Amino acid sequence: MDFFFTPRGIALLGATANEKKGGFSILKNLMTGFSGNIYPVNPRYAEINGLPCYAAIAQVPDPVDMAIIFVPAPAAPELVQASANRGLSGVIIQCAGFAETGEKGKALQNQLAEISRRTGIRIWGPNCMGMVDAVHKRVFSFVSPSIWDEGMLPGSISLIVQSGMLSAGFLIDMMTRDKLGVSKVCSIGNKVDVNECDILEYLLTDPDTAVIGLYLESIKEGRRFFEICRGAGKPIVVLKGGKSENGARAAMSHTASMAGNSAIIKGAMAQAGVVQADDFKQMMDFSHILSLFPNGNRHRPGRIAIATFSGGAGIVSSDFLDRHGLALADLSEDTHALLKNIFPEWMPSSNPIDLWPAIERNGVDKAYGQTVDAVCADPGVDAVFLHAFVGGLIWRLKLKPIVETAMKAGKPMFFWLIGNEKDTQHFQEEARKLKVPVFRELSRAVECMAAIFNI
Amino acid sequence: MDFFFTPRGIALLGATANEKKGGFSILKNLMTGFSGNIYPVNPRYAEINGLPCYAAIAQVPDPVDMAIIFVPAPAAPELVQASANRGLSGVIIQCAGFAETGEKGKALQNQLAEISRRTGIRIWGPNCMGMVDAVHKRVFSFVSPSIWDEGMLPGSISLIVQSGMLSAGFLIDMMTRDKLGVSKVCSIGNKVDVNECDILEYLLTDPDTAVIGLYLESIKEGRRFFEICRGAGKPIVVLKGGKSENGARAAMSHTASMAGNSAIIKGAMAQAGVVQADDFKQMMDFSHILSLFPNGNRHRPGRIAIATFSGGAGIVSSDFLDRHGLALADLSEDTHALLKNIFPEWMPSSNPIDLWPAIERNGVDKAYGQTVDAVCADPGVDAVFLHAFVGGLIWRLKLKPIVETAMKAGKPMFFWLIGNEKDTQHFQEEARKLKVPVFRELSRAVECMAAIFNI
Repeated sequence: MDFFFTPRGIALLGATANEKKGGFSILKNLMTGFSGNIYPVNPRYAEINGLPCYAAIAQVPDPVDMAIIFVPAPAAPELVQASANRGLSGVIIQCAGFAETGEKGKALQNQLAEISRRTGIRIWGPNCMGMVDAVHKRVFSFVSPSIWDEGMLPGSISLIVQSGMLSAGFLIDMMTRDKLGVSKVCSIGNKVDVNECDILEYLLTDPDTAVIGLYLESIKEGRRFFEICRGAGKPIVVLKGGKSENGARAAMSHTASMAGNSAIIKGAMAQAGVVQADDFKQMMDFSHILSLFPNGNRHRPGRIAIATFSGGAGIVSSDFLDRHGLALADLSEDTHALLKNIFPEWMPSSNPIDLWPAIERNGVDKAYGQTVDAVCADPGVDAVFLHAFVGGLIWRLKLKPIVETAMKAGKPMFFWLIGNEKDTQHFQEEARKLKVPVFRELSRAVECMAAIFNI
Repeated sequence: MDFFFTPRGIALLGATANEKKGGFSILKNLMTGFSGNIYPVNPRYAEINGLPCYAAIAQVPDPVDMAIIFVPAPAAPELVQASANRGLSGVIIQCAGFAETGEKGKALQNQLAEISRRTGIRIWGPNCMGMVDAVHKRVFSFVSPSIWDEGMLPGSISLIVQSGMLSAGFLIDMMTRDKLGVSKVCSIGNKVDVNECDILEYLLTDPDTAVIGLYLESIKEGRRFFEICRGAGKPIVVLKGGKSENGARAAMSHTASMAGNSAIIKGAMAQAGVVQADDFKQMMDFSHILSLFPNGNRHRPGRIAIATFSGGAGIVSSDFLDRHGLALADLSEDTHALLKNIFPEWMPSSNPIDLWPAIERNGVDKAYGQTVDAVCADPGVDAVFLHAFVGGLIWRLKLKPIVETAMKAGKPMFFWLIGNEKDTQHFQEEARKLKVPVFRELSRAVECMAAIFNI
């Protein structure tokens, strides 16, 4: 599969100088970031954007490993055949108009399958947005070139997404809003040949990928897929679309996918150690949290110490722990003794730890700091859930020392944060640098805790 | 209860010139927004901040209806008695140190209850943050005066919150982040006398309140509470803390609350037409959505038309509808005929409506516009769920005309939005003005739809 991700040269069949067309966006994207050879192919041009344009794939010189095809669907089979004849290892067909459009498109797609079987050429797509590699700045996709304006944030999460527009939109959304970087985003469309298993196997050996998130409407080779997942050395998160009857029907018309029996799929995923998500944002949250704690804490029971400025938030957090199969840690005698130092006489320490009286007596940094010291040293605590409020003078909590304490102790630390917009943004920015996760909703935080303890 | 919300004069017992103390914050807040008489009371001062300071409540002149008490807990009972003697109708005790701190505090709280019973003076609190009225700029609370810097956004949602720090934090969070305005936020603490029922009854008659959200750790007068809810002419949203065993234990130490049997409470709420939330953010989301659609669409079955730029998002939305007891609308023949005009030949229209091919042919405004026209005219559609992507040139969707179409048809419209940060903020700003809800997560959007159809 290397030729799809690190080709020496790429031919673009359907290249155009018309800026409104996908065939132009692909060229623009290639020229912006790809350092290998780029060969536009279109008999109507002698050159495009300063690059010599070839009349046919047969005339493209070496080195060329792969072609991207963006033409009207009926023209695709012939071009794939020609690409195979030219000796290419693979093609990414990004144009639509195949099995998702009815009988005629289905026949075209069958032709593609047949050519792949006969010639051995690998086909990625059709009806997809190709691949974006934010680490190496390789954009093999008709995604709007405006994504370069956003900075193309590199990260260690790779995605396999069976939905073109979504992969592109999501990429932009998470890079600009959540400042969440990605490694490779692979949009696989109708999966006539290359499917999630092929790409998943590749990404499991990819040094730039720590976690893999998948949005799938169908699982083509169930047995193979679950075996890959079971043996995976990296966390895998799956959002399966088409769980309901209506969803399954919609999947059929979207990428001609048979959604399959959702109860069976769910059970198989759980057995294979896959983390299952229900929403796109949740898929990203889980992927992010697992990229922060990639070795997981899967073999610990998930006993959580909660320290909060608000009794109410502690109570609701406890309710969420219960719902997600996590436990409130039973604090040790030593921990209680340490907490006594910062609490008023009348207050018995308990978990959730209600920090407010300690904050009033000791200030924010000492109250949080000594609490974190105590619970991180407690062998009965597997993770720390801190609630923070920012805004106002007394609330400038120094993050670095408490985060370092948790890291040294090997205990995942999570924040729930409320406060005024400006200060929360500042806090989140700092937390991002320290690689500590911050949530704005209690439910989200606890869901992510459950994901790393793999409950 | 009027004297708590619109007193002619307020005495502040525990007023101080020490800027670090709650007794100063309360005074500062009163002086910033309250237009009635303000009487600081503290024998150690002749004046504070330019106001004459009184040695005792007995010396405070008329008119004075209510006192706020912020003193060490053991001093409180005597001051309440003195306030009753002075003829005050009520006191808000904001200081802590009562039943939540153990036996000694419990005895103090019992003294308060006894004074209230004997004298008839109403006691709000103790261990609470009082009341913030953002519409009339009355802040009867030790909440940090920095909340004035945020602009005190007025709105039509009122809250009753049994957790002080939370009510304050939340207020600031939602006003600055979500730009969500509020009417009255009432923090009720230990509820020695005034409880959620008293305030709920008051807010149901309050012309500035359209929706009431409650965070409760206990329900003191169950029968009365559910009767009020059943007969309420306004939507009521409840987040009940202490649903789990651990949560209930934490509630006991927080506000000395008996959380009660959660299954029974859940059933009673459902019967009384209460919308139930699990998280603070969700409570606000539900309250917000019900403030936009206060008359509800409770008597319609909740048949949703989905129009999306992404097949994948349509599929996952369908799965969420199913999970929340909502239905995909069965589009009429007329709707299909209208949609045919914007779709390519090969594409059969269905629900979810996959707009991408229509956008490619007609541009964003025509594709969304004609789709909204069609589904809003369809008697089988109860609400419209639009997915939008913003960013890039072609994606500047004009919101106003489609929102107006939906309003004229009386059909709630919801947006799910992704895109680059800058453009999404602009879109949300515009949507806020048009009073159309925008969500960044599919799951949130569908949960809120379910709330208005009261499933």
